[in-house]
This record gives sequence, C-alpha cells and structure tokens, in this order.
Amino acid sequence: MSVFYPYVSIDCVIFGFDGEKLKILLIERTINNAEIGLSDKKLPGSIIFEDENLDNAAIRILNDLTGLKNIYLSQFRSFGDPERANKPRDKQWLERTTQLKIGRLVTVAYVALIKINRKIIFQSENTTARWYDLTSLSEMQLAFDHNQIATEALKFIRNKIQYESHTLFELLPNKFTMTQLRNLYDTILETKSDVRNFQKKMLQVEGLEKLDEVQKNVPYRAPRLYRYNKKKK
Amino acid sequence: MSVFYPYVSIDCVIFGFDGEKLKILLIERTINNAEIGLSDKKLPGSIIFEDENLDNAAIRILNDLTGLKNIYLSQFRSFGDPERANKPRDKQWLERTTQLKIGRLVTVAYVALIKINRKIIFQSENTTARWYDLTSLSEMQLAFDHNQIATEALKFIRNKIQYESHTLFELLPNKFTMTQLRNLYDTILETKSDVRNFQKKMLQVEGLEKLDEVQKNVPYRAPRLYRYNKKKK
Repeated sequence: MSVFYPYVSIDCVIFGFDGEKLKILLIERTINNAEIGLSDKKLPGSIIFEDENLDNAAIRILNDLTGLKNIYLSQFRSFGDPERANKPRDKQWLERTTQLKIGRLVTVAYVALIKINRKIIFQSENTTARWYDLTSLSEMQLAFDHNQIATEALKFIRNKIQYESHTLFELLPNKFTMTQLRNLYDTILETKSDVRNFQKKMLQVEGLEKLDEVQKNVPYRAPRLYRYNKKKK
Repeated sequence: MSVFYPYVSIDCVIFGFDGEKLKILLIERTINNAEIGLSDKKLPGSIIFEDENLDNAAIRILNDLTGLKNIYLSQFRSFGDPERANKPRDKQWLERTTQLKIGRLVTVAYVALIKINRKIIFQSENTTARWYDLTSLSEMQLAFDHNQIATEALKFIRNKIQYESHTLFELLPNKFTMTQLRNLYDTILETKSDVRNFQKKMLQVEGLEKLDEVQKNVPYRAPRLYRYNKKKK
C-alpha cells in the first residue's frame, strides 16, 4: 500500500424555508490570482481540527463561516471520490486557505433544515454567507463536488419528512393553516398534492391539533388554524 | 492550525439472519507480543487505498476479509472521535498491520442485513471471519469503538425496516408464513408483537401477497403462505 495522507473535512448543507421558498446557504469564494481569477460559491465547510470530534467540528465550522448557532445538524453521508478535490481552482483555494499540500480530501457531510427568521447575510473578515433559491442551484457550478452533496442532502431531507413529519412543523409558525402546511410540503418535495388527500393524511399525524380558531385579518373566508403539539407525539 | 494527518478507514457491520437468530460478522484479531498478548474481535474494516472511492473500498475490504461478494452495503455514518484509535492494543495492531504511524483515524461505516445461507466461517492467510449471536455483543469488548458502531448500525437497520418493510422480506424464503415474518420482525426490533395487529399492519404493505397455499409437512394445522411481489411495490 502506498503511503498517502487523506485529509478529513466537514461540509454543511443548510436548507432554509422563508415562508415561501426553499433556500440554501452558500459561501462566496474568491481567489485573487493572475492565472485563475475566481469567484464562485461553495457549501460552508472546512478541515477538522486534530482534537475535535466530527459533530463538534461541524458546529464550529458552521458558526465560523455563517454565524449560525444552535442548529440541529444531522450527519448524512461522507463523500470520498479520489478526484473530488482535483480541479485546479479547488486545489489552489485549498492550498491558500489551509497552507497545506492536500492530496485527497474525504468530507463528512451534515444537513439541516431551518426556518429563516434571522439576518440573511453574514459577513466576517474572511467570508460572506448568503441564502440562494434552491431552484437556482442547478445553474450554479459549486466548488468541489458540492452540487452532488447538496443533491444528496435534499434526497435525505425529502425521505426524512416522509416518516418524521414533525420536521415540517418546525418550519411553520406556531399556528398554521392546512394550506401553509401543504405549500411547505409541496415546496420541499416538488409535488402538487391533492387538497383533500393531503388534509386526510396530515390529520393522521400524531400531535397535529385542529384548533377552534381561524386565521385573522385575511380578506377571504378565514381558514382554520392547526397546531403541532410535540408532547402528544 | 496544527498540521496532522488523519487516516480514513472503512468498517462494515454485517448482520445476518439464519432463519432464527440475528448474527453479526466479526474478524478475529491476534497480536503476538510479549507486552500485549491479545486476541479479540473487530468489525471487518481497513484503511482506504489512495485511488478508490468509499463505496468501492467498502466492497473490496469486505471481500478481502470475509469472502462476501455482491452485498448491498449502505453507508450510514462516519465515526471520528479523536480518541477512538488511542487504546494501546489498537495502536499496536494498527501499526503492525499498516506499517504506518497513525495518529487519528476517521472511519466511514457501512451496514448490510443479509440472509445467512452460505459458509459460516471464512479463513484466509490473515483473517478468520465468523458469525456471532448479536445478543452476545454486549458481553464482548470489540476493538476501537466497534461496539458503538455496531449499536448505531442496529439502530439504523431498525429504523429502515419501519419504512422500508421489503428489507425484511429479503431475509425470508420466497414463500413464508406470517409467523416467520413476525418472528423476524420481533428478532430485529426486540419486540413481542401482537399476532393480530402485526398481521393487520403487514397486510397493508404494498406487494405482500396472500397465497392460496399452505405450508406443507407440518405436524399441526398448516398455516397459510405469503409472498412478496417486488414488482407490485
């Protein structure tokens, strides 16, 4: 076996729901270099430190690069194609930011789906983090294999909400209408659910409560409100 | 950031069902050393080669160490506690088998659940692989953090069969009784399902067909047979 030293990094795929659209949090990357002038986007990620475990590294890196705290991150998959860090622009950027000669890079990927109700742009000395429409992802060429990682993360989340519906409720206001819930569901799954079937299905979810309240200040027939009661789950 | 070189390895958790019990496939490990005389067990695992991706490394390593081929392996989690390879017996074994000074070792873990219908013991020049009762795992102190990895793998499998019931059917003969299916389910989940409720739940699984056949050559009232039709899923 030849001796080689793979590096281990963390990448975080953070999806956000702003009440309307699904977004993804990306970092701007710039290399000022005569040969490779570069400005593109990447997932928030970095190399692990020697003395931290993977979960703690993910929390640290996400906070360093985006300012986000107290996010529940799920490790969903590691990516280790031998070629994944071999593009010249990625190699250069790695060497400049880490000051290391990195051959192969295996990355452990984490994912979270959060409610966007905070500052949309984060700027520090070294990074700018910003929310982008998820639909625009297919037109962007992200750094490394980050397009693939984001795609796999979305599959993971779509699968998760099928059997852990409460993941959905956490993205909505405390009290919400069935239409809000359906829009959220259809946005994430890129489906167009039938109104009646969807309602029937959701009313079977343990913990979902029909309230004796309707939405206020709406110019049409006020729809009923629902609430998710965690304790009942 | 201090310069350090983590190694990346693969570990495979292979659960097998022999028609009665759930088993786990382990490798025997021996170090002949005056100071640390050692014989214990570990998951089949090894260090990745420079030019192979993670999935291919998992397939190669499993085959090298256990002779198993054509197994569908799911990557389920990576383990990277900084202390996970720091026990003296583990450090020594690593150095002897890899001929490398390894500081930190991050491992990407894979899991599979298979039907045991082949040779139970695999022996090559360097390894012996053997099936052990899963129930005896709690009494064994496996190498590295392999007890933890096996426990997490079992959680992953238990979760998976809740929403992908077909995983279960693949462990049974082509035609099976409801009792066989329930025993399998209860063995994996360590539950004791109610006979009627279980049958009701299973009959809702798409693809499960009630046959017009009963089990033959049984000394009591012959139970009905069922079949899982993949195409109908």
